[in-house]
Formats: sequence, C-alpha cells, structure tokens
Amino acid sequence: MNNTTPLTQRYNPDVDTVVNGIMNGDRQMLSRAITLIESQRREDEQKAHEILDRCLAKKNEAIRIGITGSPGAGKSTFIEALGEEIINQGLRLAVLAIDPSSKQSRGSILGDKARMERLAGRKEAFIRPTASSGCLGGTSPKTHEAILLCEAAGYDVIMVETVGVGQSEVAVDTMVDFILLLMLPGSGDELQGIKRGIMEIADAVAITKTDGDQAGIAAISRAEFEAALRMLPAKHSFWQPQVFLTSAITGTGIIEVWQNISAYFTLMRKHDTLEKLRHQQLKSLLYTLLEERLKREFFSNPEVTSSKESIERQVLSGQLSPFTGANTLMDAFMRPLKSL
Amino acid sequence: MNNTTPLTQRYNPDVDTVVNGIMNGDRQMLSRAITLIESQRREDEQKAHEILDRCLAKKNEAIRIGITGSPGAGKSTFIEALGEEIINQGLRLAVLAIDPSSKQSRGSILGDKARMERLAGRKEAFIRPTASSGCLGGTSPKTHEAILLCEAAGYDVIMVETVGVGQSEVAVDTMVDFILLLMLPGSGDELQGIKRGIMEIADAVAITKTDGDQAGIAAISRAEFEAALRMLPAKHSFWQPQVFLTSAITGTGIIEVWQNISAYFTLMRKHDTLEKLRHQQLKSLLYTLLEERLKREFFSNPEVTSSKESIERQVLSGQLSPFTGANTLMDAFMRPLKSL
Repeated sequence: MNNTTPLTQRYNPDVDTVVNGIMNGDRQMLSRAITLIESQRREDEQKAHEILDRCLAKKNEAIRIGITGSPGAGKSTFIEALGEEIINQGLRLAVLAIDPSSKQSRGSILGDKARMERLAGRKEAFIRPTASSGCLGGTSPKTHEAILLCEAAGYDVIMVETVGVGQSEVAVDTMVDFILLLMLPGSGDELQGIKRGIMEIADAVAITKTDGDQAGIAAISRAEFEAALRMLPAKHSFWQPQVFLTSAITGTGIIEVWQNISAYFTLMRKHDTLEKLRHQQLKSLLYTLLEERLKREFFSNPEVTSSKESIERQVLSGQLSPFTGANTLMDAFMRPLKSL
Repeated sequence: MNNTTPLTQRYNPDVDTVVNGIMNGDRQMLSRAITLIESQRREDEQKAHEILDRCLAKKNEAIRIGITGSPGAGKSTFIEALGEEIINQGLRLAVLAIDPSSKQSRGSILGDKARMERLAGRKEAFIRPTASSGCLGGTSPKTHEAILLCEAAGYDVIMVETVGVGQSEVAVDTMVDFILLLMLPGSGDELQGIKRGIMEIADAVAITKTDGDQAGIAAISRAEFEAALRMLPAKHSFWQPQVFLTSAITGTGIIEVWQNISAYFTLMRKHDTLEKLRHQQLKSLLYTLLEERLKREFFSNPEVTSSKESIERQVLSGQLSPFTGANTLMDAFMRPLKSL
C-alpha cells in the first residue's frame, strides 16, 4: 500500500457514514475514525475534526480510567483481568493501549507480540493501540480525541494505558477521571525516590503480582504506600486513595479495585465533581490544540521559512547564540503584526 | 524575603561581574546565574540571556552525562559514588540534580532531605538542584542553559539527573552526550514491558544495588539487558552499550562505568561525532526557545486575550467544539498577518 495515499482516497466513507457507524456501535468505523485522527495528512485531519464535532454533540458520559506504572509492572495483564471483570458487570469497555513504538524506531523489543488477546476476543470490548511516538508518556491530544470518539460510540468505561512513571502521568491526568497506579512488590522500599508528582495524582494504587513468594514483600509495600499517601494533600476532599494487593493470575484484588473505582464515580457524581472535571478536560484539550496550530502556523510562515536556515547555520557556527537566534526568528514572524 | 522582588533588585551584580565570576570558578556566581535562568521574571531572564550570550563565546568542552532510572533505582547514591571517582581522577564535576518538586505541590514526600552530602563537601564539585516542576522528566531549556553555564565555569564533567523511565529521557537526550540508565536487579524480567524508547537511547546500563542477596538476580538481569541491547539498532556505529553490575555501597563496578564513559568520549572525539552532537544540541535548544517565545507572544496578544474567555466559555458549555474554538482563536491571532 502506498503510504503517501491519503486514507480518504482508499476507501472513503463520508462523514455521515462514519458518524452513524460510530453511534451504532460499528467498531470498524470507530477504528477508521481513530486512524483518521492519527493521520499526519491535513485532509484526513480535517475530516477527523468534522467527525469529532458531530460526535461531541452526542453526550455520552463514560468512566475514564488512566492505568499507569513502570515498565514491567504488568499493565497489560492487569488491564485484561480488570477488563473482564468490567464486562462481566454488563458494561462495554474501550481500551486505548500504548502501542510500544518509540521516537527512533518503531515496535517493541520483542516484536509485535499480540497483547490483551483474551479481552480482544470479547464483543463488548474495543482494544485500540494508539501511537505513542514522541509523545509525553504515550498520550497526546490524539489520545484525548480518541477518548471522545469512544464515548460517542457508547462505551461505558474507557481505559487509557500510559508508559512510564514520572511527569508523563501529568498529561494523562488532563484527560481521565481516575488514575490507577500499578506498582511492583518491593517498589515502595525507597519512598524518597518516588516523587510526589506520581503519587499525588493517583486515585488508587494496585500492587501487582502479589501471588507466590512475593506476598510478604507486597504486604510491606502496601503499608509503605499507604503511609506515603496519607502524607499527601487530598486531590478530592471526599476521596482517600487506597492501596490494593492484586494478582492477575489468581484474580486477587481485581473485584476490589473495580468496586473502589465504582465508589469513586458514585461520589464524583454526587459532588458534581465529574462535570467540573469534564470542563477542565475540555479546556486542556482546547489549549493543547491551540499550541499545535500555533506551531504549524509559525513553521509554515514565509518569513520564518526564508530565514530559518541561515539563522540555524549562524547558531551552529557560534556566530549567534540560540537565544538571539530565537529572538530574530520570532521578530521575523511578528513584524507584520507589530507594524500595524 | 519578598518573592515579588526581582532577584536583580536584591543584590545586583552587573553582567560583567557575574560572567567574570563564572569564568573564574566562583561557585556562588554560577549559582546566582542559574537562579536568574530559573526566574520567572522578564528582567531576570533578560539578564540571564546576556550572561549566557557572553558565556557561550568562551568554548569549554565538557563531558555531559545524563543519569536516568526509575524512582528507587538509587540515582543519588550512584551519582555520589561515580562523582567521587571522577574527582579522584583530578576532574571538576558539576551535578544538575533533580529537585524533587512536583506540579501540584512542592518538595519530596520525605521532606527536603539533604542529598549527595558527601559530594557537596568536595571543593571540586558543584551540586545544583534544578527545578523540575511541570517539565518533561525534570529537564527543560533551563536545564540546557544551566549546562552551558557550567561549561563556561570550566567543569570537566556535567551530570544531569532525570526522573522516571519513559519518553521523558528523550528530552535529556537532546542536551547530553552519554546516557547511563540505572536499573534495579530483577527489573529485566519483563523485557516486553521495557519500551525501546528507553533502552535505545542508553549508552550504558548500570544495574544498581547488586550487593548482598541481590547478586544472583542481578546476574540474570544483566544477561537479559545485554540480550535486549543486542537487538536494538546501534545509536553510534562505533559503540555497543554494555551492562555493568554496580554497588554504591561496596564500590563494585563504579570504576568500570567511568572507564566505559571515558572510552566512549575518546571514540566520539576520534570520529568527530562530538562536534556533530553539539550542533544537534544547539539546534534543539534554538527550537525549544522558539516554542516558548511563540507561546508567550500568542497569549499576550490583545486579539487573543480579548476573545479567549468567551471562546473558553463556549467550549465548556458545549456550544463550540475544542477544535473549532482553537481555530477561532488562531484566526484572531493571525488575521493581521493574513490580511497583508
């Protein structure tokens, strides 16, 4: 397939068809719309935004859960176990999973190993790997837009998996309602190394792989995390994050985690907090989109493109400092505005 | 002290004094200049850039090392051990350590525990916590600027500590020459969970805390990491990243890690790669600074500030989609430019 052919020229259902498909639960149409969102082509993006505009009009409220944790914490297997529990409750589930691609080369170390196979076989589930290339912790405005599409498609629960433990979670925190932090047994033994940034956005902590000979260490870790959580300021006045011992193999703790999440959403709705959170999330998306548009305008500006190379050369040769270089380019962009 | 008072109004040495101080190895002047860089005030920033412009003129080439790893991997103690080894070689060392602050609240969970005390007592060392608030993995253009100042001050080796394991390392990769990844024993047991993004920017891996009863697990982890590294594309044709077993307590492996880093820089210079890398780093800084300036211009633009609130309100009430809202604001900003 020719990669330069826009998606819209291959099989090109119109906006109406895609929107109707999404709203009628057609998973292929949903998948197609997410592909349009992820496309780098302007015409695909334009179409994606028309679809999104139409989908936003239909307000479906889903439970949005961010699942985060260090590499090796067992995110995929945990999501499978929790996902099956959710489906067994009669709910429909969408998972926006991290496609383990990277900035320099694509694909995970062990190749394109199929992930979450069991869950993918369920008709109540929609599993979609999202491109994480170059984005903060694997989330981007495109992830946020994919969440909105899944909501329009009527999924009751949307899980967003993120890579890494660090500031990256701050990005997913702007698009989900509940953050579940997965930690390995023994990882609590150096709490001074665990930065507040990670712990304080967690609404619950699940210690994973607590089966077998890890049980003892897991219990200690639980106490350590509980102590750390108590020292943090409350994210919501009505919610104290809890720590759960879980095992995706034995099923330990999975129901408890789900009950905890359900209780959280009951309280969120009672306190009108969910609506406020939706507002914050939309605002955050607005400003992220603005930044993207702004950069695009700047780098396609004729004044900028005509002087960019020469300035770059002067910076690299040491004739100009990066600060003076940046100022010169900005001045070129802003001159028409300032002279009015 | 009144926080709104600009730093320059308290004790206000002029640019000449600061620049001369830095070049003469005055650590307090260096520290003052970094504080100016980190200041949010325009006048401080202006002064900081004058200082930087002057410092850039003096080309000192330092070895820039990024030290990264998960929370709990023992970054501080490892940096202390490696730092002492470096000083014992007769070199001067600057460490830009992560100040464990977070986006929502400041300070680490266990309070402002003094870090790297032993190293801080050495006159050949300069330890500086850098603000990590809200920045990708704790690094920002300000970190890059601090590196340039440390080079002007004549430090031979500059270490930059970063938080987290994930896409965040991609940011530090744009400002350092060598990335050392610290991993705990046992963390290699799930390599499919370790994303390429982390492994492929590492120039060496040090498994930490391999003393005591961790020795067996550490040896297995080493083999696993070595196997994973062999599967990755080479970052440099002349360099194959190695895995070291280390212990900051017993001193195991610390000299070996330093010898490996030294060998890398010898090869880098031989292949003219270091100069190319410096160019990439300067270019990256130029564009990061541009993005910052661009956002500032946008959000201080009168057209934008006058319509921002109304558009935000319409987006939150569902009258406008975030996409249409972003387009409307961009059009307001660009109108004077487009109409010329």
